[in-house]
Amino acid sequence: MLTCIGYGTTGADHPFAPLSLQRRETGAEDVRIHILYCGVCHSDIHTARNEWRSTIYPCVPGHEIIGRVVEVGSAVTRFKVGDHVGVGCMVDSCRQCSSCQQGLEQYCENGFVDTYNGQDKHGRGVTYGGYSQNIVVDQAFVLHIPKTLDLAATAPLLCAGITTWSPLRRWKVGAGMRVGIVGLGGLGHMGVKLAYALGAEVVLFTTSANKKADAKRLGAHEVVLSTNAQAMAKEQGRFDFILDTVSAQHDINTYLGLLKRDATLVQVGAPGEPLPVAAFSLIFKRRNFAGSLIGGIAETQEMLDFCGQHGITADIEMIRMEDIESAYDRILRSDVKYRFVIDMKTMPTALS
Amino acid sequence: MLTCIGYGTTGADHPFAPLSLQRRETGAEDVRIHILYCGVCHSDIHTARNEWRSTIYPCVPGHEIIGRVVEVGSAVTRFKVGDHVGVGCMVDSCRQCSSCQQGLEQYCENGFVDTYNGQDKHGRGVTYGGYSQNIVVDQAFVLHIPKTLDLAATAPLLCAGITTWSPLRRWKVGAGMRVGIVGLGGLGHMGVKLAYALGAEVVLFTTSANKKADAKRLGAHEVVLSTNAQAMAKEQGRFDFILDTVSAQHDINTYLGLLKRDATLVQVGAPGEPLPVAAFSLIFKRRNFAGSLIGGIAETQEMLDFCGQHGITADIEMIRMEDIESAYDRILRSDVKYRFVIDMKTMPTALS
Repeated sequence: MLTCIGYGTTGADHPFAPLSLQRRETGAEDVRIHILYCGVCHSDIHTARNEWRSTIYPCVPGHEIIGRVVEVGSAVTRFKVGDHVGVGCMVDSCRQCSSCQQGLEQYCENGFVDTYNGQDKHGRGVTYGGYSQNIVVDQAFVLHIPKTLDLAATAPLLCAGITTWSPLRRWKVGAGMRVGIVGLGGLGHMGVKLAYALGAEVVLFTTSANKKADAKRLGAHEVVLSTNAQAMAKEQGRFDFILDTVSAQHDINTYLGLLKRDATLVQVGAPGEPLPVAAFSLIFKRRNFAGSLIGGIAETQEMLDFCGQHGITADIEMIRMEDIESAYDRILRSDVKYRFVIDMKTMPTALS
Repeated sequence: MLTCIGYGTTGADHPFAPLSLQRRETGAEDVRIHILYCGVCHSDIHTARNEWRSTIYPCVPGHEIIGRVVEVGSAVTRFKVGDHVGVGCMVDSCRQCSSCQQGLEQYCENGFVDTYNGQDKHGRGVTYGGYSQNIVVDQAFVLHIPKTLDLAATAPLLCAGITTWSPLRRWKVGAGMRVGIVGLGGLGHMGVKLAYALGAEVVLFTTSANKKADAKRLGAHEVVLSTNAQAMAKEQGRFDFILDTVSAQHDINTYLGLLKRDATLVQVGAPGEPLPVAAFSLIFKRRNFAGSLIGGIAETQEMLDFCGQHGITADIEMIRMEDIESAYDRILRSDVKYRFVIDMKTMPTALS
């Protein structure tokens, strides 16, 4: 085992601080990654603060990881020292079940291994994420980063990017389709960019009038204020697909009503309380209300390559590691355009 | 116009009684039908009692109509006098929109014409349904009844049958699929029979232990008591498709949890209050929650022909016209196995 410094918390209401972590030796299939950037996801907050009541402490979050390969195992063929690579929400899965064999590791029947707060398959208990100097990951769960992309702004593609990409692809979003994106946060701003790049006519729904100009800059053809009942009524039955990224409670029936016959609304934001669905919202036009969870590894590489070809990254604000808690507070106030990324050069190199 | 006797109500809390109705002359495209049997659907109760707040009185319900052709218009090619025919929930639609042109008249973009309490296209205001001596319907909305089927027991196929058939076909239910049917009422018992005949492995979910033997007789391979948490837990993630026929409030997340990855639960019962859906019920296995409304005309004929080939009809209890209100009361107590059908020989032939 090798010791490295992580930045984490020892309890739901404890402050973040440097921690000493053990990372395994680089096994035959492993890639050791020096972490350069790590995006900050809302899940990091939920987990650090034990809001999903499943956190094992100490907790070191971070699953939007960009780094440089510093060591490879003897059987590693896909990566070499010096490569720029990414790691997302998963570092392993059973690889045996039908979901894994179809490249849908995110739906592993035996549960995938979360990048942090997961059950480590290598016998060390819990996994630690990207708020850390380095990480050791099986090559099967490591992604290539296109050379054309800014590394820091690519970090959020590993979670926010793939979480929006996967449903857009699954439901075949492309030219000739009118697509709604609900909410313009970390997920929503990626949804707008990706749906636009896929050729769809993109309509952003937001409660914030002051996001209009920004949404258009990001690729939205139209912006509808969801607080304007008249504007919403005009959009009834006009959408081929809607991606709902809102994780607060909201009136889902209003958005289901925007769908054409047989069209689907996919929920990727996860409100804490159930969303009341009126049966007639679904029955009258045979509409579908679905969910989607991140994306598979092959699909994540596909998304990164697509972003490389189209020059797509996240809009980010870089922060120092020590500012993580104030960044969390700003995320909770929706005061970020649109994703924080930690510059890991600012990572402490010793325990304080 | 020709006068005929209907059996209806002049207000939400008025008693049913014979009424004088006007039926149009038989137009070039029309079929005049002497009604032999009419099934009793829960929608009849909702409408007669104005529970959907859209009833125009007098109201003559009935949209599970079986009759004999007594007159055809000059342009009618598909029917001749003496044919046994059926009429379901629709008597017309715009026939121009994309839904109509795809044989999905039930999703007509301009609104189909309900068999009763609908906007009559022939300028007489409201439509009157099958609790009536006869009805005049455009041939495009009239169905052929297979000669092998018992006429009275075929009546419920026109609504309960097609409402369950359409989603079973749309989601390609067949051999090799494990299919759940939730609820064993008018819709549910048809769902069990049709899913079984389509070759699926059928599991019925019910709250009534005393329905077990009956469910198996109807075709269910297994019956699960939904009040038994342990039995329900064993079924998690095991279903390719679920048809939910329950129109009372129930915990939909329990049933969504029974679905495999990418599988769909279709709601055909319509609870009055919204169903609270936990986002994670959908997200974790990319599940779908959908709705479905009756079925198109061509699909209704397909269903009737399938039932003819497989000897499928509804399990019915025949009633006299004058007993309609006590039948309603029994439906509300779930005291019917599984559909009431009015023997129209008992229809009064004069106003009382």
